[in-house]
Amino acid sequence: MSIDRLQSLIRTRRNPTVAGLDPRVEYIPPHILKKHIEEKGETLEAAADAFFEFNRGLIDVLWDVVPAVKPQLACYELLGPPGMETFKKTVDYARAAGLYVIADGKRNDIGSTAEAYSQAFLGSVRVGGTELTPFGCDALTVNAYLGSDGVKPFIRTCQERDKAIFVLVKTSNPSSGELQDMIAGDRVVYKVVGDLAERLGKDTVGEYGYTCVGAVVGATYPSDLRELRRRLDKTFFLVPGYGAQGGSAEDVRHAFNRFGHGAVINSSRAILCAWQKTGKNGKDYTDAAREAAVTMKNDIKSVMTIV
Amino acid sequence: MSIDRLQSLIRTRRNPTVAGLDPRVEYIPPHILKKHIEEKGETLEAAADAFFEFNRGLIDVLWDVVPAVKPQLACYELLGPPGMETFKKTVDYARAAGLYVIADGKRNDIGSTAEAYSQAFLGSVRVGGTELTPFGCDALTVNAYLGSDGVKPFIRTCQERDKAIFVLVKTSNPSSGELQDMIAGDRVVYKVVGDLAERLGKDTVGEYGYTCVGAVVGATYPSDLRELRRRLDKTFFLVPGYGAQGGSAEDVRHAFNRFGHGAVINSSRAILCAWQKTGKNGKDYTDAAREAAVTMKNDIKSVMTIV
Repeated sequence: MSIDRLQSLIRTRRNPTVAGLDPRVEYIPPHILKKHIEEKGETLEAAADAFFEFNRGLIDVLWDVVPAVKPQLACYELLGPPGMETFKKTVDYARAAGLYVIADGKRNDIGSTAEAYSQAFLGSVRVGGTELTPFGCDALTVNAYLGSDGVKPFIRTCQERDKAIFVLVKTSNPSSGELQDMIAGDRVVYKVVGDLAERLGKDTVGEYGYTCVGAVVGATYPSDLRELRRRLDKTFFLVPGYGAQGGSAEDVRHAFNRFGHGAVINSSRAILCAWQKTGKNGKDYTDAAREAAVTMKNDIKSVMTIV
Repeated sequence: MSIDRLQSLIRTRRNPTVAGLDPRVEYIPPHILKKHIEEKGETLEAAADAFFEFNRGLIDVLWDVVPAVKPQLACYELLGPPGMETFKKTVDYARAAGLYVIADGKRNDIGSTAEAYSQAFLGSVRVGGTELTPFGCDALTVNAYLGSDGVKPFIRTCQERDKAIFVLVKTSNPSSGELQDMIAGDRVVYKVVGDLAERLGKDTVGEYGYTCVGAVVGATYPSDLRELRRRLDKTFFLVPGYGAQGGSAEDVRHAFNRFGHGAVINSSRAILCAWQKTGKNGKDYTDAAREAAVTMKNDIKSVMTIV
């Protein structure tokens, strides 16, 4: 089962963190960008090729440190169709390296369209007599504002293809509370959504006790994180907000159960942009990224133990 | 201003409807699909080429009937990178034909990532010294579950580039009420989100009196639609749910103000799949689509007048 595979990779690597692969033009070491611009001009294609070279270098040094990567779709869409080609190549390269790949797209729509998104990122499409895999990720983040019939098509694909989704429950941004913290009936909105995620996933519990419907819960609201961990004991958490956004290891420790299971903590900029802090020219970006990923692992491990 | 342009096109065409360009493999007339499969095999590329030929044929017969088209991103992502290439070509072709293009992507994320989405679909990205336009649509649908700081980056791009967004307020699907109809404080959730949209847009009112922050309000809940129209008098509505989903002309009439302004009604399948009801082989798909679009226009016009 998909989440079992992720939890198992976390145990093997002794590392409950995921590296966000969220490239921006300004994060790319100058020598890489220059090379591709010389080849293809100042084009989306050149930037997309530079993104892929950057990602490949990162995956080459991170695959035995982190269990998973989380490419952010917005960063690839920003380069138009060539960017989506780079997204696809990145997913393939990361999976070939044994990494679990979470596409961060926060997709959402009504039934038949949600089904198209789930097939695009997690499933397949039939053309003539041939089944084709558009992106083939392991998991996808999903926004549940449309209610259960916007989420169920994703769960169907998860069950058919052994994949997972992470539903946005409590996000890490400053204004997340405007809607998510409102009292709706007897619960705050984020609990309504969290309960929905756990309920919709209930028949998919795997070996480690988690369903295929995970939840995104930000590190920047640690007391909400702790409360949700207690409330949703079958829901695996994807936790953004550590590092650049302000969440600390102490803040995320309550994402885990007493065995150190049930969550993965994301960091993007601290890893991708580590080379910008070494005072060198970016040719050391892979070393800097690996070191940052190891530092993060040790930081998180200092407050918890994985059994 | 972007919404003025849309409203103005609606007046010129005497038609407050938008054609959803939501192709699926099974919607493509057999002769088109066959031709491209013969050329490129049973591949994503072949299907993407077939989608583009299909869309081009539709745009060629719809451009003087409808003011706008709304390509659904899920349908293009379903074909992977070649699908996104077709999305881009469709947007360009539709805009060249004078149509207003609403990308239906329901995108959402925290600040800097929301900015990347807004640049991808509505703005531009800088590579070296060159500004490049990834997709260049006129408008984008946005999900506001993350609160105002997930929406503001889109509005900034709207103001800089003269574009618009449509925030999901009350969606047309059966389970939309699970979250959207909950009482949160003194209002139901969809009113909280609607009020947020109107408030965030308040400094962007154009000639027709609407802001650059529109709202998606489904036709399938006509009393909510009527109430929201009265409540949000500066917010332009994009109304899905007419036709295949069950909304009637009578249901959508209250989306408009007394001048027949302030809303555009979407129909997808009734137009795209019109050829499947003629009993012919699909070679008549453009005629059938045009006829369906005219029928829809007349149906809506029968209950309202555009001044």
